[in-house]
Order: sequence, then structure tokens, then C-alpha cells
Amino acid sequence: MTDNLIIRRARETDLVALIELFAADETGGHGDTTGDDAYEDYLRAFNVIDASQNEQLFVAELEGEVVGTFQILFNRTLTGRGSLSMILEAVQTRSDMRGKGIGGQMIHHAIEEARRRDCRIVQLTSNMARTDAHRFYERLGFAKSHFGFKMKLK
Amino acid sequence: MTDNLIIRRARETDLVALIELFAADETGGHGDTTGDDAYEDYLRAFNVIDASQNEQLFVAELEGEVVGTFQILFNRTLTGRGSLSMILEAVQTRSDMRGKGIGGQMIHHAIEEARRRDCRIVQLTSNMARTDAHRFYERLGFAKSHFGFKMKLK
Repeated sequence: MTDNLIIRRARETDLVALIELFAADETGGHGDTTGDDAYEDYLRAFNVIDASQNEQLFVAELEGEVVGTFQILFNRTLTGRGSLSMILEAVQTRSDMRGKGIGGQMIHHAIEEARRRDCRIVQLTSNMARTDAHRFYERLGFAKSHFGFKMKLK
Repeated sequence: MTDNLIIRRARETDLVALIELFAADETGGHGDTTGDDAYEDYLRAFNVIDASQNEQLFVAELEGEVVGTFQILFNRTLTGRGSLSMILEAVQTRSDMRGKGIGGQMIHHAIEEARRRDCRIVQLTSNMARTDAHRFYERLGFAKSHFGFKMKLK
């Protein structure tokens, strides 16, 4: 538990720190880069997410620095009697800040938001290589009940 | 391959058939029901999905009957250099219509839509109990690379 952690919606001024977080993630293999020529692409995506009704991007801030991030996405389906789900995406804690409970605080924040929005379920996928993350999610009360399938188109 | 299959956006008049499809799915355990008192909940959800910018509900129609369904959801993230993903949800083929290639035609339709929208990736989760579905998705070219974690809130 990190007492003075602030979890809040991301702002454009967080963007450089967020790109650094994602570029440092080698397991994900999403091709993220801190190169100057990519900044406009990230900024465009940030503005889309920021304006979206269904998507929200969060940061965890500690002493003025971005130390973690996650994105939430709401999905209305017919299944579950027309229920709302929350999908968690792109959960990251800065590598030098792990083991301090920051990830847990971020997930709890997301779950509280899911309850507030009356979601039936919170769901996420985690790369099979991230065994530490799997233990983490199970400890938080998630069931490892599904396989996640991905097809890269480009 | 079912030649005369029509894949199209769902309409309100499909709703009873769609509820029957989901209610027949015992593996999912989503509590779906054809009971009269639930219809209004489904109709409300249908209208939300139908009006959504990010979500689209499809049916597969054969000789005037709904024989399958899937939902697609678009997700903009910073990861992948600000890329768009497609999430597939609630894929169902009517139990008496399996093994005719209907599922494959639905997934191909979704993938084509993902390409048209310039998505980097198409992703879905499948209950670990659905071993036939896992082979199906791998045959279509998906990688079983992730675990799917779920937390039911109610």
C-alpha cells in the first residue's frame, strides 16, 4: 500500500511518461517507442480516448511522477440480461515501482468504478508469459477462467 | 461453408431469437433467460448497442432464421502506437447449426471489418471449458497467447 498515491484520469501532460512506460514493456511486444516521430500518433490516440464515452485512461501519480497506468472500457452486451462489463487494458506499473501495492490500488480503483457503473463483471487478459501478473490478479479475486486469443493484422 | 448465409447488423426483430441463443448457452453461465420479465432489459441493451459508436451486434441469417451472432467492440489504446483493436464478444452459433462453417464465416466477416477500420489486432476470450472453440479459433489463425481473468461483481 502506497499511501500518497493519486489515481486520476490521464492528462495530455502525462503523455511522455505514459509512452515511456509502454515502450519499456518488452513482453507486450506492441512496438511502442519513445521516438519523436511517434508522438503525434500517441497524441491523436490520447485525444480519441479522452473524448470517448466508453473509454477512460488513468494514471497513478506518486510525488508528481507517473508510476502506473491502466485503461478501462465499458461494453454493453445482450448476454447477462443486457449487462454492462468493464474491460481493463494496458495495465502497467513502472518497473522500479513494483511490489509496493501500486498495481493493486489501481485495480481496486477500477473495480470501484465498475461497481459505481453497475457492471456485472470486470475482465482483462494477460499474456501467458506474465506469470507474476497472473498470481497478482488471482490474489485480487479474479478467476483465471478463459483463454485469450489474439490475431495480429499488421 | 454455408452458401446462402447472410451476415448483417442485428435488428430489433431479431431480439427474441438472440435471447433464445444466449439462454441456451449453459457454459457461459451468464444467467440469460427467455422469461417475459427479462425482455425489457434485453431491449434496453439492444438499443444502447445499436446507438453506440464503438459497438456493433451482428446476426448470421439462414433462410430467414437467426442461426448465429457476434458482437464487435472497438478499443483505442496508447499501446501499439495509438492503435485500434477489435474485441469480439458473445460469439454463438445455434446448437443445431454447428459444423457447417457458420462460425468461421462470422469470424471472417469480423476480421474483414477490423481490416477495414485499420485495426492492429482482433482479440477475444473463450471459456477454458470450450475446448472445441479453442481449436476453432486457432484454426482460423488466432494465437492462444493470453489468459482471460474475470471477476463477477454481482
